[in-house]
Order: sequence, then C-alpha cells, then structure tokens
Amino acid sequence: MRTAVYPGSFDPVHYGHIEIIRRAVRLFDRVIVAVAANIEKGLGAFPLEDRVAMLREAVAGIPSVDVAANDGLTVDFARARGASCLIKGLRAVGDFDYELKQSAMNRRLTPELDTLLFIADPEFAFVSSALIREVAALGGDVGGLVPPAVAARLRVRWPREG
Amino acid sequence: MRTAVYPGSFDPVHYGHIEIIRRAVRLFDRVIVAVAANIEKGLGAFPLEDRVAMLREAVAGIPSVDVAANDGLTVDFARARGASCLIKGLRAVGDFDYELKQSAMNRRLTPELDTLLFIADPEFAFVSSALIREVAALGGDVGGLVPPAVAARLRVRWPREG
Amino acid sequence: MRTAVYPGSFDPVHYGHIEIIRRAVRLFDRVIVAVAANIEKGLGAFPLEDRVAMLREAVAGIPSVDVAANDGLTVDFARARGASCLIKGLRAVGDFDYELKQSAMNRRLTPELDTLLFIADPEFAFVSSALIREVAALGGDVGGLVPPAVAARLRVRWPREG
Amino acid sequence: MRTAVYPGSFDPVHYGHIEIIRRAVRLFDRVIVAVAANIEKGLGAFPLEDRVAMLREAVAGIPSVDVAANDGLTVDFARARGASCLIKGLRAVGDFDYELKQSAMNRRLTPELDTLLFIADPEFAFVSSALIREVAALGGDVGGLVPPAVAARLRVRWPREG
Amino acid sequence: MRTAVYPGSFDPVHYGHIEIIRRAVRLFDRVIVAVAANIEKGLGAFPLEDRVAMLREAVAGIPSVDVAANDGLTVDFARARGASCLIKGLRAVGDFDYELKQSAMNRRLTPELDTLLFIADPEFAFVSSALIREVAALGGDVGGLVPPAVAARLRVRWPREG
Amino acid sequence: MRTAVYPGSFDPVHYGHIEIIRRAVRLFDRVIVAVAANIEKGLGAFPLEDRVAMLREAVAGIPSVDVAANDGLTVDFARARGASCLIKGLRAVGDFDYELKQSAMNRRLTPELDTLLFIADPEFAFVSSALIREVAALGGDVGGLVPPAVAARLRVRWPREG
Repeated sequence: MRTAVYPGSFDPVHYGHIEIIRRAVRLFDRVIVAVAANIEKGLGAFPLEDRVAMLREAVAGIPSVDVAANDGLTVDFARARGASCLIKGLRAVGDFDYELKQSAMNRRLTPELDTLLFIADPEFAFVSSALIREVAALGGDVGGLVPPAVAARLRVRWPREG
Repeated sequence: MRTAVYPGSFDPVHYGHIEIIRRAVRLFDRVIVAVAANIEKGLGAFPLEDRVAMLREAVAGIPSVDVAANDGLTVDFARARGASCLIKGLRAVGDFDYELKQSAMNRRLTPELDTLLFIADPEFAFVSSALIREVAALGGDVGGLVPPAVAARLRVRWPREG
Repeated sequence: MRTAVYPGSFDPVHYGHIEIIRRAVRLFDRVIVAVAANIEKGLGAFPLEDRVAMLREAVAGIPSVDVAANDGLTVDFARARGASCLIKGLRAVGDFDYELKQSAMNRRLTPELDTLLFIADPEFAFVSSALIREVAALGGDVGGLVPPAVAARLRVRWPREG
Repeated sequence: MRTAVYPGSFDPVHYGHIEIIRRAVRLFDRVIVAVAANIEKGLGAFPLEDRVAMLREAVAGIPSVDVAANDGLTVDFARARGASCLIKGLRAVGDFDYELKQSAMNRRLTPELDTLLFIADPEFAFVSSALIREVAALGGDVGGLVPPAVAARLRVRWPREG
Repeated sequence: MRTAVYPGSFDPVHYGHIEIIRRAVRLFDRVIVAVAANIEKGLGAFPLEDRVAMLREAVAGIPSVDVAANDGLTVDFARARGASCLIKGLRAVGDFDYELKQSAMNRRLTPELDTLLFIADPEFAFVSSALIREVAALGGDVGGLVPPAVAARLRVRWPREG
Repeated sequence: MRTAVYPGSFDPVHYGHIEIIRRAVRLFDRVIVAVAANIEKGLGAFPLEDRVAMLREAVAGIPSVDVAANDGLTVDFARARGASCLIKGLRAVGDFDYELKQSAMNRRLTPELDTLLFIADPEFAFVSSALIREVAALGGDVGGLVPPAVAARLRVRWPREG
C-alpha cells in the first residue's frame, strides 16, 4: 500500500488544496493531510483545531483521505505512518524555490522519503490561504475559492456590513 | 474618461513610484493613487496620514492625479470611482509572482477591472520602500531616491549623527 | 485618441492573443496588431500573409482593431501610427525577462512610447504558438485553444490519420 | 498496477535521468521511459536508435523499467500503455516554466493523466544533456555524469587528442 | 592588499557560509565577516554575541579571516576597513532578486565598492539559517549542515527528548 | 598575481561587457577576455576574428586586459593561463539559471577554479548582444550601447536607408 503525506498549514483550506488531494487519491492508496501545529502567526490565522476541522469537512466525500495534526517534523510524521512520499502543490516560481529547499532538507533527514510535486491547475494557481484571509478581512467575497463551510467561518471572523 | 487606480502602501513614496505615475498620466485621463490603510507593520512604517501627505506633496506638480486613503478592497475602491483599470509597477521576478496572484484574484472579484503593469525604469528597478527604510534607519543617504520632503521626514525619524 | 500597438509573431494566433486584444479594446480607442515579418524559423512556421490573414479573421468581430504586417522596428511602426504605447501579454517568468529587456530597449529607442503588460488569464497562461504547433504537428487536438479557422489550417498542414 | 511514463529526449541519458528513474520505481509498479523520436536538432544530437540503446543499457539493472521510442504525442503514448501519470525531473526555474506549460497542455488533452514532478538531487541539478554534449564536444571529461557506455560513445563522436 | 567583506546575519552560521569563506580566502588577501547587529527577529534568533562567537569558532582554522559585528550600513563598515568589495553567496532565484536590489543600492551609496557573488555549491544550495532553526526547533538533526559547536548550541536551545 | 578570465561570445561586444571589464580590473591584477570560437550561429553572428578585433579596440584604453580567442573548454583556457577564477555578468533570472549550471559544471571539471558573478549595472541590465543584433538588423540605432567602432561595423552589415 502506497501512502502519501500532504503537509501544510491549511489556514484555511481552499479549493486549490482540495484539487491536489483529489488528484493524489487517484495515484496513491491513501493520502494523509498533515496540518502543521506551529505556524507563523500572520493576519487572522486560525487555531489548529479549526484548521483540522475545516479540512475534515472539506475532504469528507473523498475516499482514502485522512487528516491529522502534526506538531513535529514532517518527515517524522510521514515515517511513523509508513508513507512512501510527501506531496506538494506548485503554483509559482516562489513556491518552487521554497519546495526545492524543503525537499532537499527532507531527503537529507530521511533519504527514503521522496517529495512529489503536482502543478496547480491554472484555475487555482493564484489562490493562497494568505490571499484568501487578506480578501476576507477586507470584506471581499471568496465564495468559489473555498468550501461553503470555510466561507461561513471567514464571514464570522470578519463580518461584512450590509 | 479613463481613470486608472494605482494602489500601494507608499511607505514612503519614492521616485520609482513617481516615475510610474508620470508615465500613467500620459496614458489615462486621471490617475488615483490609493494608499492602503492597513499594511503589514514592518521596520519603521509610517502612519497612513503621513504616507498620504508625502504622496500629495510628491505629486503636487503632476496634473490629473488624486491621492486617497483606502481601507477596503482595492477593487471596491476602483469601482466606486469608475476606474477602468488598476496599474502596478513591475521590478523583479518576485514582484511578478505577487502581481500575478493579485491580478487574478482582482479579476475574479471584479471581472471588468483589468490590471496593467508598467515595467520599472532600470534606474529605479532596485528601489523599494522597505529598502529605503532599512538604509535610512542605519543612517544611509537616500537622497536622489525620494523627494526632498520624504528625505527630511526620514531624517527626523532616524537622525544621523554628525 | 489613444492607440495601442500589440506586436508579435502570431504563428499562429491563439485564444490567449484574442483575450489580450479583447481586454485592450476596453482601455484604448484603437488597437493595431503588428505582425512581425521576419521571425525565427521554427518548426512549421506559417508565412507572413497566412499569419496576417488568420489574425484578420480572428478579430473580425472585435471593433477598433486593425491588423498590419511589420517588417521594421516595432517602435518605428508604432510611431508612424501615432500610438501611445505598446501592449504585451505576460504569462510566465521567462516572458517577464524577455519583455523587460525589450521594453527597456524600446524606451531607449523611443522614450515617449511606453510598454504596458497584461497578465494572461490563467486559463490561457500555458498556451503559446510554439506549443500549439508542436501539438498539432504530432496530431493532437488544439480545438478550444485557437479559432476554428486556425484549427482548420493546422489540420491541412499536419493531417491526422483516421 | 500503477504505471508512470517518463518522457524526454535523452540525448544522451545522464545520471540525473537515472536518478529520477530509480526514485520513480520506488513509487510506481512500472516506469516506461518514452524517448521522443522528433527533437530539435542541436549540436551533436544522437539518432533515435542510439538514444534508445544507451537508455536500455543504462537501466538494465533497474527492475520494472521499460524503454520505448515515441513518435507521437506523449499523452497518446501514455494512454495506450494504461499509464496513471507522467513524471518529470525539475532542476531550475527555467524547467519550471516549461513543465508548467507542458503539464497544463497535457491535462487539457488528457484530463485523467496527471504530471508529477521530482526535484532533481542537488548533485545533478546542473546536469543537462545539452551541457554534456557541449563539454564533450570541446574535449571535456563527463565521466561521473553519464554511464561508462555513454561516455564511450561521446568519445567516439568527439575524439580527444592525447 | 585586497579585502572582501562578507555581510550577513549568520543566525546561525552553517556549512554553506563556511564554504563561501573558504572559497573567498583563495581570491582575496583578507576576508572580514560582518555580522549584522539588527536583524528581523524570527523564530529562535540567536543574540548578536552568540552569532559572532559561533562564527569565530567556525572559522578558527581558516587563515586571513576576521569576524566583526556591524550595527551600521554594510557599505560604511566596508569602507572603514578599506575593503575592495562585498561578497555574497547565491543559492536560488529568490536570493538573486534580493542581492540585485542590495547590490544596486550599495553601489549607489558607495560607487567604488562592488559586490561579487559566489554560486553556492549544489551540496549546500538548499541550506539556510532559517531552515536550520526550523528543523532544530522541531527536533530534527542538522548535524552535517552546521559545525559541531553550533549543533550543540541548537540542542541546548531546543532539547530533543530521548 | 590574480588573474580572472571573462568568457563569452561577444557577438558583438557592448557597453554592458565593457562595464564588467572595468569593474573586474579594479579587483584582479589581470583580466583575460576569452572569446569563444564556436558559437551557436544566430541572426547575423560575426566571425571570430571580427569579434576579437572589436573587443581589442574596445578595451584598448583599459590597463591589464588581454583578449584571446578560445576554441576549447573555458576551464582549460583558464588553467593554461594560471587564472584564479572565471567572471561573468548577471542581468536577469534567465542568466542566473544558465550561470548556475555552467559554474557547477566548471567546478566539477576544475575544482580549484571558481566563478564570480558581477551584477550588471541597471543601466545595462537590458542589453544583450542578441538584442543589439536584432535592433541593428531592423535599422535601429544602437549608439550609446556599443562602442562607436562596433556601431560602424553594424551599419556596414545592415545598412540603413536615408
């Protein structure tokens, strides 16, 4: 059985993430989403439990997907679950630099654990959690970019007038 | 009448910004500079009113330019003023990634509002507000990169000895 | 009256080009597409007259657009037509490097002629004339990426069996 | 059974390619290397049969790997073999732009066929077939970058004096 | 005598830095490492005295190297020491954008002081101080990437269980 | 004595090259410009002897500079002349990818020979020999970008009417 681990902050999960997960389950027997416990606190970050809960709801209909919090190294998380590889989505050149460094470090820490990159669908290549928080904080509509339940939480956090 | 909105933090305005504005007024009937109210607080950020005031002084001699604070979404600001498009300056590859994401998000929020990019003049391609603050804070001379009034304010904020 | 010149090889024109033209006519009074006469001869390049003809058909329904061949410098072409600026589409980082060099050279040759960049719609960010020729030459279907008349010419040039 | 197709020119195969293949066979049940028949003729390109033969020798010791020539679209090759995905190696930013375009085009042609990217090992991130041909043509030693049999063929093609 | 100044945060020093220093002493008569006093406070930053001390230990065996703290502009530091140039290591595209801006600003501040870039060895191209702190904070092993004394300090700061 | 080798095609030499040479002679005792004999034949390439002659004229006034043709590997050329390092100019991201690969290959071929990169002056960051040939071939004025003698040769090659 081939298991892939999909690590990230998911703050919050958006359709770009979901699309990667849907593509990954076609190639792996099991996909475990690893939600990082400790993240840089930026504008409007959600607490860990909320990020995990939003992800669980978002992937409820997709078979062979697990969601778990991770407060350690991604490679230790993956090894403990017998994963064959890490997966990441790639959107832009900035992503590439970052993933290149992470992947080289991870292979050094755990040589048998490879990293595979999916290229983001053009439709979602511009979507990031940070941009979604930024737009939602200013009252913008992010429907169509996040699941309805996430949109609802964003509206509770940053209510729009009118 | 074609109106362009030029959004940014302008913290502080520098000659790279002024150059974009001068080029924009040749192509549009009116250019409105939208100064973002809420910005990431970095090293030595200026308050909104100071940033607006410095811009107003800097563009005083350029016809058809307005300066206004913006505490909402750029696209809402632009729509409320009947703007045809947003304009941005492009200096480096990092800018490109960022503007690509912003422009795609903005077109999703407001399809009729396009984004046009000016390529920064090579003379100013290395200038950023963050770098100007960094140099000024360490006592460096940024004359020639910012208008005299901005240079004066930087010296008040970070006095140089001698 | 503000005229924009959109230079390129258009070998062949595709929907990414058309999308830029549609966006440009909303911002300028007139858009002149300048088809470069002399281009690097790559795999399956179309002759100038074919490239011009395909463009003319493709923009037939869009008001305020002209198509003309250009066998000289783009800046001379633009100046002779009283254009205010050049426009280009930007898809990827490689484009950015190229356009930055071209734009700086063009402004040196003709300072009063600026270059404005449109960011390609994500849907067309991956489309290039070279990739379309490559796929068509190997029998792939490029319908949906080029106008029907262009698809027909590609099939004549590279017939598919069956 | 999950099959991955690894397309390329392999002109000639080098250890950067072999490393990707070794990593791929750990994640897929079968890896088919698809050697492109029609390639841009650059400095010293090898004929198709040589490129296939060198690859066959190079992967002789790796289980679950096939090598085949491909004179059509990569996606048609992959579909005919029941492949789940294409795989590519990613070295540098230039690669990224190229693979992004290819992958988007391929998913448009064949939506069920995904592309997965491996990040090149830093040790081989600088190696390309073009650079190997260039060095060999000038009499440089590419031992350690290509299998011994490839090095031998390069020496036959471009004999070194002394 | 030609002196080069190597500026940075060195938070902490790692083998990528040491490699640049070793290469620089072959080309310059003297290399002065300038440790920036004021840095962005990120996750787990070390105080200035610790960063200087770790560097001094790390370069103890390399002739013609000095280490000094710098609480002013890099160009002033270099001028005061009669340096011919600044040197920096280049790893990735993100580095390139940053160094391009810094170098242009520094040449404007001090035209006679040039910046020379070394390309990081592929083995260390993925190593950054930030990534080392991140891995160490999560209990990962960074041995082989930093000198033993640095590894020891990291373990004191972020003890691993077991 | 520290000697630097500056390799390239110089087809033709332009002020961006000259600027790098001027900066290099301040840091090295001797700079040898190595003009590549065998280059990709593009639009309007000059023969080797012309490229060497134009360079010799261009650097005539700069002390400690030699110009020589090179029909072998750059590293062999440099080793035979006792050079300490290679130097290159860096303009854009595309350059960076290319130089990174070349430098890694060169260090593999000759570990004791390092590569140092100068960042192009913003004024010349957009200038390349290919762009100069392209503009000259279409009758454009490249005065101010190349030495007068080069401009004269370009006019002979591509006469302008009028």
